Amino acid sequence: MGSDSDLPIMKDAARILTMFGVPHEVRIVSAHRTPEMMFSYALSAQDQGIQIIIAGAGGMVASLTPLPVIGVPVRASALDGMDSLLSIEQMPRGVPVATVAINNATNAGLLAVRMLGVGDADLLARMSQYQEDTRDDVMKKAEKLQTDGWETYLNP
Amino acid sequence: MGSDSDLPIMKDAARILTMFGVPHEVRIVSAHRTPEMMFSYALSAQDQGIQIIIAGAGGMVASLTPLPVIGVPVRASALDGMDSLLSIEQMPRGVPVATVAINNATNAGLLAVRMLGVGDADLLARMSQYQEDTRDDVMKKAEKLQTDGWETYLNP
Amino acid sequence: MGSDSDLPIMKDAARILTMFGVPHEVRIVSAHRTPEMMFSYALSAQDQGIQIIIAGAGGMVASLTPLPVIGVPVRASALDGMDSLLSIEQMPRGVPVATVAINNATNAGLLAVRMLGVGDADLLARMSQYQEDTRDDVMKKAEKLQTDGWETYLNP
Amino acid sequence: MGSDSDLPIMKDAARILTMFGVPHEVRIVSAHRTPEMMFSYALSAQDQGIQIIIAGAGGMVASLTPLPVIGVPVRASALDGMDSLLSIEQMPRGVPVATVAINNATNAGLLAVRMLGVGDADLLARMSQYQEDTRDDVMKKAEKLQTDGWETYLNP
Amino acid sequence: MGSDSDLPIMKDAARILTMFGVPHEVRIVSAHRTPEMMFSYALSAQDQGIQIIIAGAGGMVASLTPLPVIGVPVRASALDGMDSLLSIEQMPRGVPVATVAINNATNAGLLAVRMLGVGDADLLARMSQYQEDTRDDVMKKAEKLQTDGWETYLNP
Amino acid sequence: MGSDSDLPIMKDAARILTMFGVPHEVRIVSAHRTPEMMFSYALSAQDQGIQIIIAGAGGMVASLTPLPVIGVPVRASALDGMDSLLSIEQMPRGVPVATVAINNATNAGLLAVRMLGVGDADLLARMSQYQEDTRDDVMKKAEKLQTDGWETYLNP
Amino acid sequence: MGSDSDLPIMKDAARILTMFGVPHEVRIVSAHRTPEMMFSYALSAQDQGIQIIIAGAGGMVASLTPLPVIGVPVRASALDGMDSLLSIEQMPRGVPVATVAINNATNAGLLAVRMLGVGDADLLARMSQYQEDTRDDVMKKAEKLQTDGWETYLNP
Amino acid sequence: MGSDSDLPIMKDAARILTMFGVPHEVRIVSAHRTPEMMFSYALSAQDQGIQIIIAGAGGMVASLTPLPVIGVPVRASALDGMDSLLSIEQMPRGVPVATVAINNATNAGLLAVRMLGVGDADLLARMSQYQEDTRDDVMKKAEKLQTDGWETYLNP
Repeated sequence: MGSDSDLPIMKDAARILTMFGVPHEVRIVSAHRTPEMMFSYALSAQDQGIQIIIAGAGGMVASLTPLPVIGVPVRASALDGMDSLLSIEQMPRGVPVATVAINNATNAGLLAVRMLGVGDADLLARMSQYQEDTRDDVMKKAEKLQTDGWETYLNP
Repeated sequence: MGSDSDLPIMKDAARILTMFGVPHEVRIVSAHRTPEMMFSYALSAQDQGIQIIIAGAGGMVASLTPLPVIGVPVRASALDGMDSLLSIEQMPRGVPVATVAINNATNAGLLAVRMLGVGDADLLARMSQYQEDTRDDVMKKAEKLQTDGWETYLNP
Repeated sequence: MGSDSDLPIMKDAARILTMFGVPHEVRIVSAHRTPEMMFSYALSAQDQGIQIIIAGAGGMVASLTPLPVIGVPVRASALDGMDSLLSIEQMPRGVPVATVAINNATNAGLLAVRMLGVGDADLLARMSQYQEDTRDDVMKKAEKLQTDGWETYLNP
Repeated sequence: MGSDSDLPIMKDAARILTMFGVPHEVRIVSAHRTPEMMFSYALSAQDQGIQIIIAGAGGMVASLTPLPVIGVPVRASALDGMDSLLSIEQMPRGVPVATVAINNATNAGLLAVRMLGVGDADLLARMSQYQEDTRDDVMKKAEKLQTDGWETYLNP
Repeated sequence: MGSDSDLPIMKDAARILTMFGVPHEVRIVSAHRTPEMMFSYALSAQDQGIQIIIAGAGGMVASLTPLPVIGVPVRASALDGMDSLLSIEQMPRGVPVATVAINNATNAGLLAVRMLGVGDADLLARMSQYQEDTRDDVMKKAEKLQTDGWETYLNP
Repeated sequence: MGSDSDLPIMKDAARILTMFGVPHEVRIVSAHRTPEMMFSYALSAQDQGIQIIIAGAGGMVASLTPLPVIGVPVRASALDGMDSLLSIEQMPRGVPVATVAINNATNAGLLAVRMLGVGDADLLARMSQYQEDTRDDVMKKAEKLQTDGWETYLNP
Repeated sequence: MGSDSDLPIMKDAARILTMFGVPHEVRIVSAHRTPEMMFSYALSAQDQGIQIIIAGAGGMVASLTPLPVIGVPVRASALDGMDSLLSIEQMPRGVPVATVAINNATNAGLLAVRMLGVGDADLLARMSQYQEDTRDDVMKKAEKLQTDGWETYLNP
Repeated sequence: MGSDSDLPIMKDAARILTMFGVPHEVRIVSAHRTPEMMFSYALSAQDQGIQIIIAGAGGMVASLTPLPVIGVPVRASALDGMDSLLSIEQMPRGVPVATVAINNATNAGLLAVRMLGVGDADLLARMSQYQEDTRDDVMKKAEKLQTDGWETYLNP
């Protein structure tokens, strides 16, 4: 990520990776404030054994590595995140960034797990399990809502 | 893709995959017009040996498979693609879709290649080569522009 | 609705239906987190005697049932509801969703009552009465404002 | 509709209603240019035996009748239809307009058929049939695409 | 205005009119909730001696009277006022509404005074005086800022 | 207007004024390219006997005169007129510009006539007549459509 | 700036200029409320020895001086700054305003320093130093994050 | 610029610089396709004697040089230039890009001339002359319009 002010958002990706047992590092590398560090980081990522990069704004990184890059548009103080979204997502032909929803680093983590699952059947199975768990959580709430009625559900 | 009217856009992904020698199929499966087919396609994709799905609108597919899903927002007749973009990209927590730029199926193809490259060093090497080739193409144009001057370049 | 976090918004539809004496159920069925449940729910809705479905995002449901589907765009944390609105409202030809205003589940409930009124003269009469009551409420305020003047009206 | 310039768009609703054998009338009634006609039309619609109104901009009509009103945002020369969409869809609490996609009068017609189907099992069955036919059309194209390959499909 | 919830905004127009000694009435007339009242109000306004109408959403009113109508887009809970703005401002040819800035009823009042000033030299002179007073207020602040410096100005 | 490239749009205001017999002048005065001319024009307008100013972008003019200023947002090559609209319409408190729809100089002309009608009963009567004529035109089309049916109407 | 309400934003430019030792003045000059002062200020700026002007909305100023003008779009109460941004940035051909990000007067100050640095090698060297300092700050945070881990970093 | 497809837009900056006798080079350097070239170009620009950089998307360049960077948002095939505008203009604190209007490379050239004029009285004088020439051009058109009338002006 480009700044520690993005950490409260971006940590959600780390949480998902930890939950799936995927080794990862959380780093501040700013394309605009530490361009050399970004440059050398992106250029050497593959040789360092890094397989996927999740970035706050991944365009420059994606142009410097053949690895898949996931971009999380972080909402800044104006324009409700639309500027971040368009900056990351509307990349020119040749430089793909896998963009997820605004501030949704959880989905960035889940997308990384799915990508790693392409070559790791066990990980893919755990992703299926995660989806089933999510399903079960929703269904428990659904049952509780049907049992209690919405008025009790909202004001227990 | 959901309709053959998307084919002139989505074929660019097929072109990239062919260029990289990645086996793929191009299919019409509409979430809204053939929901059962979409359902069974997505649910069985992993067992069919499919590793990645590129979709015109991948939200429903992503909820039915643990595979990574890449979404291409296709510009329809109104709103300049903004509606497609937001529909695909703003997915809720738990269901990631790797969204690329509007109408940019080329990047969807390249993103798929990068994902497959996570477990395939040879493919990753070819992606690096592709990036170098792109670089060389741009640099040739850059040199020609410097040699000719912009007036001759535009009106040769 | 797709999540219990939408309940504080969606309950307004239930309130309207209760006010008009229309039997209804309030359920959590998530297209993205419980796709099978959504699928079987939508496919069997007609046979279950359901006549109209009000959904947080009704596109998938509308493709699986011939029943009329009303969509309520629920405002999420970013983009002020514009993403929800466009996702629900900009459906492709063939799959209509009757979209109401952002967060306006009251209007979803009223629209359902009007739809049921097509075949139920008594219900339609009660809708007319509801409109007259609303009119009377506004006119009482209008009279009070004219009597009191706006300064007293604002600071009684 | 409010002007004959909307007819090339709005005729698609008439086509659907004709296809389903639903009696209907196509009329020009402008809220802004023939307000009295709109007023008397909307107020008397129910007594005239009208069951549903499809309008280019249905807000005023919906406030004058208890019937369900379907709104079709018609794209004008600027802003790509966004102004029409927001004008119709963002109605205040109490006055619902069932809004469909920009310029998508086909869906307005289909939505009207679904509404009428609430009290007409035969009509609902034909809507199911229509959905199956649409499905079959898509599946035929899907099969042709798989048989021919996308290159032949695009350049037969 | 259409609802007493708009009063905290719309009262600013009344304030300006009071300041300029322009007789006026502040009324709730809702196009959508009291359509008949709106209709008769707009149709009879000219005969009642009303010269200008300031409305929360003036489109319907403008179609029912030859008087000039000023529209104030009032910001509702979503979309930051953009929906109100486009609904009022993007009127079809033939029905002009003099739209001012979002929530800016002060400017609606000032615009009404300018319109009345077309036939009232004294009122126009007072508008010039108002502009000079505004100028003087700004210039006093400007001088204070230059004297104090911005740090003292902000933290006196 | 600020440029002769706006003339094909702005001429529609002149047409309306001519139709109503309102004397007027059509001038190019650019706030950004002839600022002194704009300045002296706006400052002296009242003394020259000008009563209302219609401008392509009236903010600066409105700050230099107590006369009512009508603004027509002219669509430029990008952003579909949204930039022009917001620049003209979102004026700060104290400086009202009566903004009409994008490219809709017809409405600017009609609004000017309505403003002049505040002190000219005859002009107001002609505006009422204009509204009736518009109504009649629409009703003739409405009748023709009912007589011919929409298919004949579209393909006579 | 046009109003003292912009001072909490615009002071950030003054801070940067002070930090770089660039003499400057902070003034309230409103294009819309003190147009004559704006006019004479802009026309005389060059002769007063002013080299660069930073403005809240610089369009009019830029048309009255050959000096470079930097515009800071200040977010007002509605539309999240988009109206300010488009008003300042979308200037017609011939009148450039160097627009920075919404509310980002820091960047306006830095841009002014860079402009002055064109003819002042020492200032340019200090800008390079500023960039290095920023880099070091980020890198210190980056190191701390790597040492502590993100959980400790967020909850020390 | 990042691609020769931007040349038909960006050449307008070169034209202005040529007109003012400012030596310049027109080069293709793509942040995303030739990142190393962009990196070394930006890092060495100051030592090469470059004083100002005009870029299609200047964010990365601005982070690598202390020179002033002017950004021209070039409209791509979707979103009418809004994505380019926000990507360039909404830079984080610390990295200013002087953004001009969409596709308006003319203003980029003029802004560069104004910046160089800060230390070059002769250039500034020529900018004043340019503004006067523009003024004269507009005034000639203004006179012709007044002499001919708008009907003859449009159809000579």
